[in-house]
Amino acid sequence: MSKADSLFNKHKELLAKACDAIQERGHWLPYPEIPSGKIYGETAKQEGKEAFESSLNQPFIVKGPQPQGRVGVEVSPYTGELGISYDQYNAEDLIMTAKQALPAWRDAGPAARVGVCAEILERLNKRSFEIGNATMHTTGQGFAMAFQAGGPHAQDRGLEAVATAWLMMSKVPVSSTWNKPQGKHDPLLMSKKYHIVPRGIAMVVACSTFPTWNTYPGLFASLVTGNPVIIKPHSQAVLPVAITVQVCQQVLEECGFDPCLVQMAPEGHEVGIAQALATHPDMKIIDYTGGNHFGDWLSENARQARIYKEQAGVNTVLIDSLPSLKRSAQNLAFALSLYSGQMCTTPQAVLIPKTGIETDEGQMSFDQVADYLCNTIKKFLSDPERAISVLGAIPNPATVARLEAAESLGKVRLASESHPVPGFENALYRTPLVLEVEGTDAAWQQEQFGPISFLVAVEDTDQGLQLISEAVANKGAITFAVYSQDEAILDKAEQVAIEQGVALSCNLDGGVFVNQAAAFSDFHATGNNPAANASLTDVAFVADRYAVVQSRRHMVSE
Amino acid sequence: MSKADSLFNKHKELLAKACDAIQERGHWLPYPEIPSGKIYGETAKQEGKEAFESSLNQPFIVKGPQPQGRVGVEVSPYTGELGISYDQYNAEDLIMTAKQALPAWRDAGPAARVGVCAEILERLNKRSFEIGNATMHTTGQGFAMAFQAGGPHAQDRGLEAVATAWLMMSKVPVSSTWNKPQGKHDPLLMSKKYHIVPRGIAMVVACSTFPTWNTYPGLFASLVTGNPVIIKPHSQAVLPVAITVQVCQQVLEECGFDPCLVQMAPEGHEVGIAQALATHPDMKIIDYTGGNHFGDWLSENARQARIYKEQAGVNTVLIDSLPSLKRSAQNLAFALSLYSGQMCTTPQAVLIPKTGIETDEGQMSFDQVADYLCNTIKKFLSDPERAISVLGAIPNPATVARLEAAESLGKVRLASESHPVPGFENALYRTPLVLEVEGTDAAWQQEQFGPISFLVAVEDTDQGLQLISEAVANKGAITFAVYSQDEAILDKAEQVAIEQGVALSCNLDGGVFVNQAAAFSDFHATGNNPAANASLTDVAFVADRYAVVQSRRHMVSE
Repeated sequence: MSKADSLFNKHKELLAKACDAIQERGHWLPYPEIPSGKIYGETAKQEGKEAFESSLNQPFIVKGPQPQGRVGVEVSPYTGELGISYDQYNAEDLIMTAKQALPAWRDAGPAARVGVCAEILERLNKRSFEIGNATMHTTGQGFAMAFQAGGPHAQDRGLEAVATAWLMMSKVPVSSTWNKPQGKHDPLLMSKKYHIVPRGIAMVVACSTFPTWNTYPGLFASLVTGNPVIIKPHSQAVLPVAITVQVCQQVLEECGFDPCLVQMAPEGHEVGIAQALATHPDMKIIDYTGGNHFGDWLSENARQARIYKEQAGVNTVLIDSLPSLKRSAQNLAFALSLYSGQMCTTPQAVLIPKTGIETDEGQMSFDQVADYLCNTIKKFLSDPERAISVLGAIPNPATVARLEAAESLGKVRLASESHPVPGFENALYRTPLVLEVEGTDAAWQQEQFGPISFLVAVEDTDQGLQLISEAVANKGAITFAVYSQDEAILDKAEQVAIEQGVALSCNLDGGVFVNQAAAFSDFHATGNNPAANASLTDVAFVADRYAVVQSRRHMVSE
Repeated sequence: MSKADSLFNKHKELLAKACDAIQERGHWLPYPEIPSGKIYGETAKQEGKEAFESSLNQPFIVKGPQPQGRVGVEVSPYTGELGISYDQYNAEDLIMTAKQALPAWRDAGPAARVGVCAEILERLNKRSFEIGNATMHTTGQGFAMAFQAGGPHAQDRGLEAVATAWLMMSKVPVSSTWNKPQGKHDPLLMSKKYHIVPRGIAMVVACSTFPTWNTYPGLFASLVTGNPVIIKPHSQAVLPVAITVQVCQQVLEECGFDPCLVQMAPEGHEVGIAQALATHPDMKIIDYTGGNHFGDWLSENARQARIYKEQAGVNTVLIDSLPSLKRSAQNLAFALSLYSGQMCTTPQAVLIPKTGIETDEGQMSFDQVADYLCNTIKKFLSDPERAISVLGAIPNPATVARLEAAESLGKVRLASESHPVPGFENALYRTPLVLEVEGTDAAWQQEQFGPISFLVAVEDTDQGLQLISEAVANKGAITFAVYSQDEAILDKAEQVAIEQGVALSCNLDGGVFVNQAAAFSDFHATGNNPAANASLTDVAFVADRYAVVQSRRHMVSE
């Protein structure tokens, strides 16, 4: 038995559980999300930190073709320049290296590939603290979030892609016997073979905010279906990708495969490598998370590839009534604050009827609701330790500039504040800016990436639903939340969600937030509106990454 | 229980068998392929002919928006003008009508849609003789083939798409309970709902040669996943589509759905409706079978839609050695003759080593093999009754013109002959033209649609494999056949098939022909070479026609 096949056996039970979970969609998390010493080992936290620190100010080596130079421009919003450099390559060299690696990986078959991918995920899980630190210092996320989103939650999404692909690939038999009766004559007998064949070379264009969470679905969906993968990390968030590539390469090599089945294509502030890779005739699959500018460019230019992309959107909350004012406001305060609004699932606009709403604490005017919400946010973020752990530090100066320019977009209901980060003397964190606008105002109907929220005064709930419907149709959205004690309104909201293809969350007032999507239970995005043309992780996300090639021949009847 | 749900129950057993068959891929055919009175009823043949004849020379009415005119230019290659006219519509009206029909169909859910689609297929099956006649007189196929390919075999492919989609859709639960433990606290409990939501409006651009066989997969895959479908028939082959649309509309209406969930957009020799429909912003799915000219246009212009297309290709046969000379030659004679080479699966080029080959009747030179094959074809087609039933009559004058011009493409080894069709005094059939060319000649590496075959003299088997590999990579192919008694050569051919994504048939010398793909067992095309970007019918063909939209809310724990 090959090493890869024995890894399939090793992870068989996990895989079976993952396959069940995908089809039941209850709560199931394969990789522990709590950064606890009891789970990960008492020394894991310290070792992870040390591993991260030992990477600083030196080259980080992964395998690839002949290097053409070195690059590294990552800046921690907490501690400044990371000083890590990475090899750079020619696009053509990367593609040729990937092509050479392909046949053996393809011919190993689905089970071997599943075994290798599951082992990679297990190894990544063991490095979650290191990845957490790397994620924190590249994305600016607070450590707890960086650990979860960059580590176990990203691994969950990776395993979800592996299991979804396995469910599909394993339904295609390796062979069949075709036995067609011919009346009184001997039957026609044929033996047939079916091969799962990858599309070709795949790439993942990673983003700066979730360098692993948004990368693993495409990486593992492409890899497990037989496609070599080249990851183009964002120049500001290379290290979490580099660690991932290193782990992939180690496991692949141990199993006798070419480590360059997973490669990295880093670049600095200059651009070019992503474009060259994306438009190469051999590039057949592209996964992309990021802004519309490059996403539209890809659709226009990388016509030879199947593109799975997640772009900008406008996520909304509609408040019709509040069955639990205090708890709902706390929930929203967290949702609007988390990672300084830099999640693709963060609500940008909260629509509230001008005529006021009913709450469990009585009727409230628009102004009262707005004040209550702003005060809840303010209070929630008044403790700097909590504030920094929720908000994180913003790594991208463009986001800070956007925040500063946004004050002119409406009436300021809560000003953004800037505070020093406890423990990191040169770093700042920023609290959210909350603006009030009219429903017809264009400002809230356009993605304003960062800690910028709008309270939108609408005529009534119906107009609110109509505006949300239009915003999702025109600009796309990944999340939509509604608060109402009226079942008829919740039904109407569900109809809007169905019509516009956006996930709906109703009356969230506890420990679940609209920004959060749980692997194996929640589909992230639907693929049915302009914010994303694919969902993480449904069948459509994996099924077109491979083809079935068959052969047939006559059998001599027994 | 709704009518549609009761239809699901009615067809449940058939569906279960279809789902098993898809995953086992042995021989299984739901709809009897033999035009026998014992199966279809003793009067069925006569009634089908009469039904066809009663449609001639008058309007054929299906439902749609306000008609804008009438059109009908179909000419039977056997009997002349059909004289049938069809309503024409505005593209915008068709789209708006489809949009109105969508919500109720979407909200009916997968099981109801599966029930309706299975019922449509059963009704279509009952009209197989009528469809057979309609197919014969529009495509020119001989009746036996027209019955099979236009009737039961097309229905097989339809059910295959329905069952493949059902396998996927039914794996998404309607609802789930998400129960996340919170240590000593109460668990977080959420109830979630999952909706299968169509992409939008779908269209099928049907072809003139297989107006139902190539239409049903896309039609049923789109319809069963919730998308209203508009079929744009080829101007020469409207009637088989019109009968199909009529049956769809009848069943839909009986079940309380808008019959205009399936509409038809006929046109005459002018063009425009397909372009207008394909580029409409609401058109989200396009299935296309036809030439590269319009296929490339679609990819260039219908960018808002997911396009599944089958275009031109170059199918090849490589003869390395012949374990059964006589039987193999007979098999090839049939394969090259069937429907005058107008199948997307017909081999166009037979590559034979110049140095000759081994056969069970001794070593033969290239010339001897070529003569043997040409003589076998000639003899096979010497009986006019058999010839017409296999070849059919060619409906498209452009194909005849291409045939006549093709003589200059190589050395004529077998001239095409023109003979009157028995029983149809004004009709002609044409026997295949067989040309000899060199391996490096460009002529055979370009699709020559119609009864034009090349015997290609190659240096040796390895060069033959290399040339085939290049031809498939550059021009695409749906089939590839090899004859050899050497397992190592068969393995090499299988490697080429895997590398280039083309289905392989080995040593066919009995009652299975390389042109034939059996639903539920053979995947038609792979989607992995330029001849087609999708396969009939794998998971990728259905999974991207719908999205999953979810909602979630807290549950109060018990």
